[in-house]
Amino acid sequence: MTNARPVNRQYRLAARPVGLPKPSDWSFSEEPARSPAASEVLVRTHYLSLDPAMRGWMNEGKSYVPPVAIGEVMRAGGVGEVVESSHASFKPGDYVSGTLGIQEYAMLPGDQLSAVDPKQISLSAHLGLLGMPGMTAYFGLLDVGQPKSGQTVVVSAAAGAVGSVVGQIAKLKGCRVVGIAGGPDKCGYIVRELGFDAAIDYKAGDLKSKLREHCPKGVDVYFDNVGGDILDVVLTRLALRARIVICGAISQYNSTSGVRGPANYMSLLVHRARMEGMVVFDYAARFEEARREMSAWAQAGQLKLREDIVRGIEQFPTALLKLFTGENTGKLVLQLL
Amino acid sequence: MTNARPVNRQYRLAARPVGLPKPSDWSFSEEPARSPAASEVLVRTHYLSLDPAMRGWMNEGKSYVPPVAIGEVMRAGGVGEVVESSHASFKPGDYVSGTLGIQEYAMLPGDQLSAVDPKQISLSAHLGLLGMPGMTAYFGLLDVGQPKSGQTVVVSAAAGAVGSVVGQIAKLKGCRVVGIAGGPDKCGYIVRELGFDAAIDYKAGDLKSKLREHCPKGVDVYFDNVGGDILDVVLTRLALRARIVICGAISQYNSTSGVRGPANYMSLLVHRARMEGMVVFDYAARFEEARREMSAWAQAGQLKLREDIVRGIEQFPTALLKLFTGENTGKLVLQLL
Repeated sequence: MTNARPVNRQYRLAARPVGLPKPSDWSFSEEPARSPAASEVLVRTHYLSLDPAMRGWMNEGKSYVPPVAIGEVMRAGGVGEVVESSHASFKPGDYVSGTLGIQEYAMLPGDQLSAVDPKQISLSAHLGLLGMPGMTAYFGLLDVGQPKSGQTVVVSAAAGAVGSVVGQIAKLKGCRVVGIAGGPDKCGYIVRELGFDAAIDYKAGDLKSKLREHCPKGVDVYFDNVGGDILDVVLTRLALRARIVICGAISQYNSTSGVRGPANYMSLLVHRARMEGMVVFDYAARFEEARREMSAWAQAGQLKLREDIVRGIEQFPTALLKLFTGENTGKLVLQLL
Repeated sequence: MTNARPVNRQYRLAARPVGLPKPSDWSFSEEPARSPAASEVLVRTHYLSLDPAMRGWMNEGKSYVPPVAIGEVMRAGGVGEVVESSHASFKPGDYVSGTLGIQEYAMLPGDQLSAVDPKQISLSAHLGLLGMPGMTAYFGLLDVGQPKSGQTVVVSAAAGAVGSVVGQIAKLKGCRVVGIAGGPDKCGYIVRELGFDAAIDYKAGDLKSKLREHCPKGVDVYFDNVGGDILDVVLTRLALRARIVICGAISQYNSTSGVRGPANYMSLLVHRARMEGMVVFDYAARFEEARREMSAWAQAGQLKLREDIVRGIEQFPTALLKLFTGENTGKLVLQLL
């Protein structure tokens, strides 16, 4: 008996982008999904997570994870449904999360998958609030930033998946929270819907005087997702012993003229301040602890994350660009099913 | 009866320098030293400390100390002998240290002076090993850098007053120590006389491959006195969870085109590393503890600091420049008496 195998459509990395990824940096391929070997699981992708960090994975060179190889299916986190399994922990119909990649079917060793429960919280929330962005916000803010009640926390890309969660957790911890975002819609959103104390529209200019106005006692914690000009201006407004969490540098990821370093870094000396990098994978052993606390906050209505859902695998190349042009608010998700 | 008052010759700041301080940025003045008012002490300056940080004090704007005002005697630490005293703790003939300024006689409230004992260690050593450079090295390395035995410590301006002490303390703590200095003389000095494991001559080029050679397991602690290119290259060689101590940025102090930020700062993220600023004055309450330990090391021959002594107050403007042209080795001191 021959079983027709399902067709798996995929986006593979065809070339290392210079600047913003362009259509020719991708190749679209189709192949039959094979049957699971021992301990493997075949997953039908429902949602894929689109994150700024993906741009870094496309570059050659040493980083916190190996780059995606040319010809390889583009790396991405996702959630989906088990369709075939040779692993004792999973059976068809189970929902799982893992590094599924930009493809309709993913074959992974079972021990690289986590079971998720779509009854507790929506399936896509496992990519956002309870996924990498949520975990990044939780551990980056609390472990690296170490905010104290009453202190001032500033976050950039504040309407994004990480930033909007950082701000809400900081509010839950009793901080004054100021978000930096682009445009009046995002600024209105983080103040009115997410409860930030203030928002600064960096596109409106005059960031420095607005920071002075909204952070009269200086900035105790700056959670940086963007780098560039904004990091440099925030450096001029630090409070004594401030902590800067280096989570990302979206403004620099597509630069073709090299990364711009923070010229005002000597403010670290003046303010006895610290700038520290974080990678969310280091906290994997504590994800469950964080997910429990964040789920409780979400169920109590104290924590939310808007999702920007784009449908169809063929939308991947253009959807990804929304992260770098500032078009999306909240968690950007590619829905395949 | 009228007493002829001693003449006090002084260097005052005449203009805020653009780039390297030039002769017209100073004014040379003479005035009679007045008699001490209640609690004041008149000190005859013996030695003055010349330090890179002085360049920062000449700039306008907010920093960790107020700038020297135009027309004010240039700020400098020094040691000298009490000649007149209206303070119960000091009598003529006592030796003291304090912020004497670039002048032959300093009038200070007694509570701003510390007694020093020239029998234990040379008078000028109170400006170097037991002065600000020594304290900066001790607390910057041990408290901020937190080196562990067996780790690799790299220090820039390694033949300078701070850098040479950082390296020796790191050796005493069981670290592998690599110094970055300019020219074969300084490099030979720190290896042969101070016991560094290796020296890298940044003027010889190829810093990156030499760092790879001498720090095969990466850099755990980088004590940075210089900023600029060297900081950027060291950032590419960090070990996981490295600590960068921001102590100074000599290469940038006289820049007329603005400070250059470290373009490779995202290495902090890749390596989960930290960059932290320090100001020695924060540790004032613990200076005595550090001085006891460092004096013991010095007496045991385990810690030394070469002194580069320039004689005559009129040499001040040119002597100061040696710090920025890389001419001096060890502690630069201006001897007045």
